[in-house]
Amino acid sequence: MDLDVTFTPLDLAARDKAGRTVVVIDVVRASTSIIQAVANGCTQVIPTATIEEARDVAATLPGPERLLGGERGGERIPGFDLGNSPREYTATQVRGRTIVFTTTNGTRTIQAAAGAERILVGAFSNLPAVVHWLDRAGGPVLLAAAGRLDRPASDDVVCAGMLVQQLQELRPEGVTLSDAATIALQAYRACEGRLFEAVATSASGSALLSLGGDYGRDLRFCVQVGIASVIPVVEAGRIVALLAS
Amino acid sequence: MDLDVTFTPLDLAARDKAGRTVVVIDVVRASTSIIQAVANGCTQVIPTATIEEARDVAATLPGPERLLGGERGGERIPGFDLGNSPREYTATQVRGRTIVFTTTNGTRTIQAAAGAERILVGAFSNLPAVVHWLDRAGGPVLLAAAGRLDRPASDDVVCAGMLVQQLQELRPEGVTLSDAATIALQAYRACEGRLFEAVATSASGSALLSLGGDYGRDLRFCVQVGIASVIPVVEAGRIVALLAS
Repeated sequence: MDLDVTFTPLDLAARDKAGRTVVVIDVVRASTSIIQAVANGCTQVIPTATIEEARDVAATLPGPERLLGGERGGERIPGFDLGNSPREYTATQVRGRTIVFTTTNGTRTIQAAAGAERILVGAFSNLPAVVHWLDRAGGPVLLAAAGRLDRPASDDVVCAGMLVQQLQELRPEGVTLSDAATIALQAYRACEGRLFEAVATSASGSALLSLGGDYGRDLRFCVQVGIASVIPVVEAGRIVALLAS
Repeated sequence: MDLDVTFTPLDLAARDKAGRTVVVIDVVRASTSIIQAVANGCTQVIPTATIEEARDVAATLPGPERLLGGERGGERIPGFDLGNSPREYTATQVRGRTIVFTTTNGTRTIQAAAGAERILVGAFSNLPAVVHWLDRAGGPVLLAAAGRLDRPASDDVVCAGMLVQQLQELRPEGVTLSDAATIALQAYRACEGRLFEAVATSASGSALLSLGGDYGRDLRFCVQVGIASVIPVVEAGRIVALLAS
């Protein structure tokens, strides 16, 4: 199994993704929120690039069935039902509904993954499920760390590195790492056992904490490993469950 | 001092470089060869993107004064005087001469650095000199790991990480690391004391070793830290010594 990592959407967009499974990793917070939404029974998540596009898509859906979710600069968008806190995506809120969703880095990374054999959404919260699925599926894997504003982000790279480590443990002889995968693995090992600290001091984490409020609880939520068993998959512009939780 | 790292020429090209010192790092082997050429007294190195451009530029120079150097796929280009082995760039060969130089990743990275306040060439061989120069100069620094074929390369990232560590040691309170700089530092620490192994197993190193011959000696040359005190600087399309060795 070939394991590779990209650090920014730009790098991902330039890469040949044919025949590869891409795992989109935006730990703080888009991936974690999407995983929560899907785990808690939403019908689908529709990722959109802009606020206008989100409103346009939402306008085509019956009111009771849809929710507008997402952020700009970390904050809930005015007029939207939900922000980008995974703690908001509860079963009470999302079950049976479509979530039209827009965030900066996560959405760009999903778009840059176009052309892949399969696009999954991963984070710490569903990491063991993703590892076991990738191991069973075989085939080349590209872990797409979303980064922040087109720059590498430690939280996403560390999560990619944890995926690399766990896949390597499952397949001691059967994993070939690119240099980028090795770098991600080294970044993960450097903060093994200190995930909260690594995420809180990352550019994404510290930007969120600087907003004040209770965003620290979001970060604590985002570093919980394996609280979800669902794997969201991007199919024809919408995100649904690949495996039921 | 703000310290940032890019992992590919694509990332570097997209970055705002105004007011920053960019250090172009292509350990295996363009940076190391350029440093040797400048350390051994060449008049200038002219980096060119293509073989044709290299031949055209050379044709404008008097025969005894110029050398054609560079590689494609690791090997010397047919008809060129020198390849891309730093061991070829001896004083006997290069003193007083202009070297018209073309390599794949190093040249692309130099081009992607356009717009920077200053573009330096760094590698393990002149790393202590670069560290001390950056410390004295102050100001924001972008360490541009060249990568290989638009992908991150461990040898370059590890070298960037060593630069980060040494600058941090010189300025314990005065260095602010981007997430990418932190990732490079973690990659360096993971192979501290094992530089040859890290470089030999990197994509660049193993590609070179796979060519056979005595390229292993080139890798041993490239991991020597501090054998040169010269810092090449890119100015108006040519590379000259910033500090005399």
